[in-house]
Amino acid sequence: MTMRAADTVFEAQLRAAMPGLWLGTPEPRHLEEPRGRFRGVGALLAKPASVEAVSGVLRACHAEGVAVVPLGGGTGLVGGQVTEVGAPLILSLERMAGLRSRDGQSMVVEAGASLQQVRDWAEAAGRRFPLGLASQGSAQIGGCLATNAGGVNVLRYGNARALCLGLEVVLADGTIWHGLRQLRKDNTGYDLRDLMIGSEGTLGVITAASLRLVEPPAEEGTAFFAVPSPAAAVALLELAQGRLAGCVSAFELIARQGLSFLREVGPEVQFPFAEDPEWMVLIELGLPMGMEAEEAFADLFEAAGELVLDAVIAQSETQRLAFWTLRESLPLANRRIGAISSHDISVPVAEIPDFIETARAMLAEMGDYRINCFGHVGDGNLHFNVFPAPGKRREDYLQSREAIKRAVHDLVAGAYDGSVSAEHGVGRLKAEDLERYEDPAKLAMMRAIKAALDPRGILNPGAVLRE
Amino acid sequence: MTMRAADTVFEAQLRAAMPGLWLGTPEPRHLEEPRGRFRGVGALLAKPASVEAVSGVLRACHAEGVAVVPLGGGTGLVGGQVTEVGAPLILSLERMAGLRSRDGQSMVVEAGASLQQVRDWAEAAGRRFPLGLASQGSAQIGGCLATNAGGVNVLRYGNARALCLGLEVVLADGTIWHGLRQLRKDNTGYDLRDLMIGSEGTLGVITAASLRLVEPPAEEGTAFFAVPSPAAAVALLELAQGRLAGCVSAFELIARQGLSFLREVGPEVQFPFAEDPEWMVLIELGLPMGMEAEEAFADLFEAAGELVLDAVIAQSETQRLAFWTLRESLPLANRRIGAISSHDISVPVAEIPDFIETARAMLAEMGDYRINCFGHVGDGNLHFNVFPAPGKRREDYLQSREAIKRAVHDLVAGAYDGSVSAEHGVGRLKAEDLERYEDPAKLAMMRAIKAALDPRGILNPGAVLRE
Repeated sequence: MTMRAADTVFEAQLRAAMPGLWLGTPEPRHLEEPRGRFRGVGALLAKPASVEAVSGVLRACHAEGVAVVPLGGGTGLVGGQVTEVGAPLILSLERMAGLRSRDGQSMVVEAGASLQQVRDWAEAAGRRFPLGLASQGSAQIGGCLATNAGGVNVLRYGNARALCLGLEVVLADGTIWHGLRQLRKDNTGYDLRDLMIGSEGTLGVITAASLRLVEPPAEEGTAFFAVPSPAAAVALLELAQGRLAGCVSAFELIARQGLSFLREVGPEVQFPFAEDPEWMVLIELGLPMGMEAEEAFADLFEAAGELVLDAVIAQSETQRLAFWTLRESLPLANRRIGAISSHDISVPVAEIPDFIETARAMLAEMGDYRINCFGHVGDGNLHFNVFPAPGKRREDYLQSREAIKRAVHDLVAGAYDGSVSAEHGVGRLKAEDLERYEDPAKLAMMRAIKAALDPRGILNPGAVLRE
Repeated sequence: MTMRAADTVFEAQLRAAMPGLWLGTPEPRHLEEPRGRFRGVGALLAKPASVEAVSGVLRACHAEGVAVVPLGGGTGLVGGQVTEVGAPLILSLERMAGLRSRDGQSMVVEAGASLQQVRDWAEAAGRRFPLGLASQGSAQIGGCLATNAGGVNVLRYGNARALCLGLEVVLADGTIWHGLRQLRKDNTGYDLRDLMIGSEGTLGVITAASLRLVEPPAEEGTAFFAVPSPAAAVALLELAQGRLAGCVSAFELIARQGLSFLREVGPEVQFPFAEDPEWMVLIELGLPMGMEAEEAFADLFEAAGELVLDAVIAQSETQRLAFWTLRESLPLANRRIGAISSHDISVPVAEIPDFIETARAMLAEMGDYRINCFGHVGDGNLHFNVFPAPGKRREDYLQSREAIKRAVHDLVAGAYDGSVSAEHGVGRLKAEDLERYEDPAKLAMMRAIKAALDPRGILNPGAVLRE
């Protein structure tokens, strides 16, 4: 579909129709994404400060057939926030960043608030908003919902979807859907909230959300357990879940390769074991009052027998933060080394060990690579990233990148019936993968729904569904 | 839309096209619903035994414009399973009731399996499928998903939606969507699973589901706490959640009126307190190893101070079951008394006490009624049911029924921004309510999606969306 440019004529129209609207020229930060895979274009930047203003902008774009790229914090890793074609209007939610209401069970926040701000608001009410991402200082809650963000606490609390009670959304033609109910249960009609969540700005623009808050656990603790293998990690998780009634808040697998990268390029972190283990898991527990986290870890260690080689339990809040700093520094070290190909995949949890072994063997036959495989093993979600051999650079492998990605994704989607986009979304990076791996019936339904809700195709064209 | 009848000519066509298909005449049980509000019609009954057979039936109905009413266990309370108009084909899933696969994390079951059977399969694997309903012996898992069933453990484990990882669905034109992935995380495209869940057979026919299993908690316990008021119940829940790190598995509010009904009409149950308290809550805890449920209840009782008047902790499995029998007998006693109007509503949890008081006062001004209000207070979900004054029968109030329902629903949807269908769905009983209370933008989106996925309108016509 050819879209009209958001040119000076359109800009003049919009200014005339909406005198108070902030309009200007996109800055570089509005056209970039973290991995530098895409260079965005944008003819006009709008920063509406209210849902009515968002509605006005979309109404005008719909009438004129102008493409709109909704923009949150810009931290997405699949190019959902930047288009490389056309002359779209960039719709930044940054001026809609307020807290509308809050009680002990939930709160209503605007889309442009950073995830960190949302977490702080919850904490100020003695509650917790348990969505945690390395990028939470910049990521905006609207973007987290538009991409159904995951992170380190999904195991216990679910992804962004599970933490959202209601939405305010502006549809393609400017219609406002007032869906900000704060209910735990609501079976009145089709679940459009979950349809919007994860649709990456292609079905509507989320302007506010009603979020679920949880009570912080009475006792919390964090530990590193060194394990002999991914199979032991999965068995340890099962043991822990059975003993601890689902009180495992995080369970993150870390490979020795990740620690080596940290030692090689930083950032500087404290390493928990004198000698880096082949595999380790970062475990966080959130327990009832009357249980001591340290004791629970000690009991788990004892019960685990040969599933565990060694353990370090955080003895202070400082140490607890240091443990998490190591985990959250892994992506930065990866970026400094420079991955040839990164894969955000998921398989059934029980298949994790087999997948890691099979994928490694497959890649070893393809060439000389280093693999750093880490992630949310309790969700069956791995960041399986392929790096150059020592002394080489990612640029040396440009020809093999596509083959590596294809091989890993074929394996995930084929033998394991897994997902090639577990938590990062589809964006533009994986729109072709979606066509390759998704069930044709699902793709046809997606296209039918897109056509029904955005008949002129103005919302984030080219993201999720290619034209 | 006028549909073609599933007449003898159509039946002959279908027999010719699908020689092995079970076809016959609907029995009374295929045309009834538990409350007797609707008398169903059906010209032809099909019992396909495979997803391919379901596909064949729908392809034929789509081609000929024959209406299809998908049927599970028939326990739904809003008439979603029976139509009173036309001459539709009744599509019973009862012959698709198998277990396709199972591991420690999930299992794939066919739609026609009863919820009890599904729970038993989970238990046989040392796991739990934590969806619990009074009707679980008859309710089928396909229907539970089609209606997004709730029940007593939603507080901890979520509703049917939260326990489903993937679906196999036959669409209106017979296309099969193979979406049975067993993944905890999957962000590949629009969330069509959640769109199908809760669509009550109007967007597709669920033929199988991949379900999430959980580890049974190491320690479990059940108790009745007598509380002075609904406000105390809500405060007690908050206290319990804060102390017990979310280990509260159920928290059910019961009014003295419900106990009086049980004493009046049975069934026979054991009453926990010598004198029925004005309000009590049934609490179930599922705790980590090393914690004693009895001790946790005792600690909670002490910490609760004036929030609690008295407590009885189950001392054996027999007593635990007796506690639950009381709770699960409430709907039967209600049915024996005969409600003038029943309301499955939800409001924000913190608003529960205020809502109960306001609704009672409102009804007291309207006439002489008894109110039995009970339910899942932790979900903000009450079954707020209005009964005849002593010595009168529901038949004496037929003129006021509509006014009562309207007044309660207006209050819920208005002042409390609540839901008039918290867990039972819309069906045919509340299709008009949906039009009255739902946001017009949501209704328009629902109609657009229905038209896009079922353009001939053959799937469960009149349910959820009126014509």
